[in-house]
Amino acid sequence: MIETDILIVGAGPVGLFTVFEAGLVKLRCHLVDSLPQAGGQLSEIYPKKPIYDIPGYPSILAGDLVDRLMEQIAPFNPGFTLGERAEQIEKTEDDKFILTTNKGTKHKASVIAIAGGLGCFEPRKPPIANLENFEDKGVEYIIKDPEVYRDKRVVIAGGGDSALDWTIFLADVASEVTLIHRRQEFRGALDSVEKVIDLANQGRISLLTNAQAVGLNGNGKLTDVLIKHKTEGNITRSTDHFIPLFGLSPKLGPIADWGLNIQKNAIEVDTFDYSTNVPGVYAIGDINTYPGKLKLILCGFHEATLMVQSAFKHIYPDRKLSFKYTTVNGVEAF
Amino acid sequence: MIETDILIVGAGPVGLFTVFEAGLVKLRCHLVDSLPQAGGQLSEIYPKKPIYDIPGYPSILAGDLVDRLMEQIAPFNPGFTLGERAEQIEKTEDDKFILTTNKGTKHKASVIAIAGGLGCFEPRKPPIANLENFEDKGVEYIIKDPEVYRDKRVVIAGGGDSALDWTIFLADVASEVTLIHRRQEFRGALDSVEKVIDLANQGRISLLTNAQAVGLNGNGKLTDVLIKHKTEGNITRSTDHFIPLFGLSPKLGPIADWGLNIQKNAIEVDTFDYSTNVPGVYAIGDINTYPGKLKLILCGFHEATLMVQSAFKHIYPDRKLSFKYTTVNGVEAF
Repeated sequence: MIETDILIVGAGPVGLFTVFEAGLVKLRCHLVDSLPQAGGQLSEIYPKKPIYDIPGYPSILAGDLVDRLMEQIAPFNPGFTLGERAEQIEKTEDDKFILTTNKGTKHKASVIAIAGGLGCFEPRKPPIANLENFEDKGVEYIIKDPEVYRDKRVVIAGGGDSALDWTIFLADVASEVTLIHRRQEFRGALDSVEKVIDLANQGRISLLTNAQAVGLNGNGKLTDVLIKHKTEGNITRSTDHFIPLFGLSPKLGPIADWGLNIQKNAIEVDTFDYSTNVPGVYAIGDINTYPGKLKLILCGFHEATLMVQSAFKHIYPDRKLSFKYTTVNGVEAF
Repeated sequence: MIETDILIVGAGPVGLFTVFEAGLVKLRCHLVDSLPQAGGQLSEIYPKKPIYDIPGYPSILAGDLVDRLMEQIAPFNPGFTLGERAEQIEKTEDDKFILTTNKGTKHKASVIAIAGGLGCFEPRKPPIANLENFEDKGVEYIIKDPEVYRDKRVVIAGGGDSALDWTIFLADVASEVTLIHRRQEFRGALDSVEKVIDLANQGRISLLTNAQAVGLNGNGKLTDVLIKHKTEGNITRSTDHFIPLFGLSPKLGPIADWGLNIQKNAIEVDTFDYSTNVPGVYAIGDINTYPGKLKLILCGFHEATLMVQSAFKHIYPDRKLSFKYTTVNGVEAF
């Protein structure tokens, strides 16, 4: 059981900065995120895109902002549970919370701060009836460790950069790579498209355009993908893995079942301290809503800061919180 | 008459960032500040001190943060009226405001955003009965342009860095410099203290410690300073200028008379949009107050951002505000 003061659900920029503000009042933090690395959308979706509206940065790459935030919170040693989705919370008798992830990891904390951004980024799934039966039994939507595919047969589906890039990469790792794509044209970088076509011409991968995966076979473990080709009809391809790479789409996910007041996929909060209707549970950043809400990182920073003050009072109702400026003595003084 | 959309009173970090957010919705801004340069306290009081709690900056010198903000808002070409104190506002018939400074400069705007920090930094004045009679007639509290003192006789009073530094600087400019200080010891940098003592020993300045200015003489223009010395009694020193440098102290100043609801030297606002009780007048940053208020720059950035949305609706009640992210197309697209 991981124990902390503030359990932060979501390790995006707002969740990360919460660690800093909590550190200033000597509250420990632990972050849980379904993505395999910290930074949320900034790391996962647009690490190389510049952001222009972070105050004091005329321009900063999203990935660099994450690096700076990680550096800023390092003195406060936050814990991380990454690659696991926060699944459920329950109240304990001593007025704390137990949060369990989809992998069963349990965390105990006095306060839950939901900084979940647009929610979990869930993979877009192709409409194959028995798809979910094969999840973790040959079907994966995110490639976390390419070594899993060494000397295996792999079928990738998709027409964007992710599908193209992994096809190129796995051509050197897997024993057999098939890329299937619904259309003739790809949406990815021209350079990647050319490389994939070259690999197909060299016979190092199989490329099936105008084709779609429509069924899966296997007994407890995936053995075949059924493919429907526009002109050639049905094809059965023997494989160890089927990897549909159709992008990620945001979903509020299991948080929707935590008993919080939800309005249009966002959690209603009080702007006094960004508390939800459940005492001890706060929501900050893009995942919350209130009159006038703007989904901006800089607003989440403010929300995190005010939230931490309230969290302190929730945890230590009798202690006086003395507010100090970092400029006077530096971060080490805290 | 200077005309703009949002007239920002106070060119500190929050006032400056307002220009950026206003620029994104195509509102023009003009800033008024009693200090001679932009940046507020950051430039005036602690430009060389590091700040640790700006999100994304593990550490940044206050002066550097101002430089970055100036760079960030440059694409939106804000106007500045510096070295003039916002003195009074009046409503026009076409539902706008006229703001007049202490120098008589008039500004017309649809919206006033007060980002006044801790208020005007007013010079601490020595208790000399007729001191104010000689203001701008030989008495100055801030040195804006040292060339004013070329080949003049100057009496400086004070024991801190400002008094020491200007004494050193003016020794090469003025025809005669006298530094008077109430105590024997100085509060400034050791290095500066040594330099001043050296200058005194070389006869290049007069140094009077344990001495205090107690009276001023002159007929329309300052001619003499009366000095009371602890052991030597009264001294009359002929001079062209008397410059008491006793530091600056924050005062709400004339803003207190603008009909706004004030609570403990701060302006009460609604956290929906940081509006005051006067429609069209907003207050953001350290100068405002609301339940849970923290006087932090990062909170002011958030307040400025939400305020601008409301200002837009105040100015264009019938136009729809389309909210766009800078990350998509960059600042040039706005």
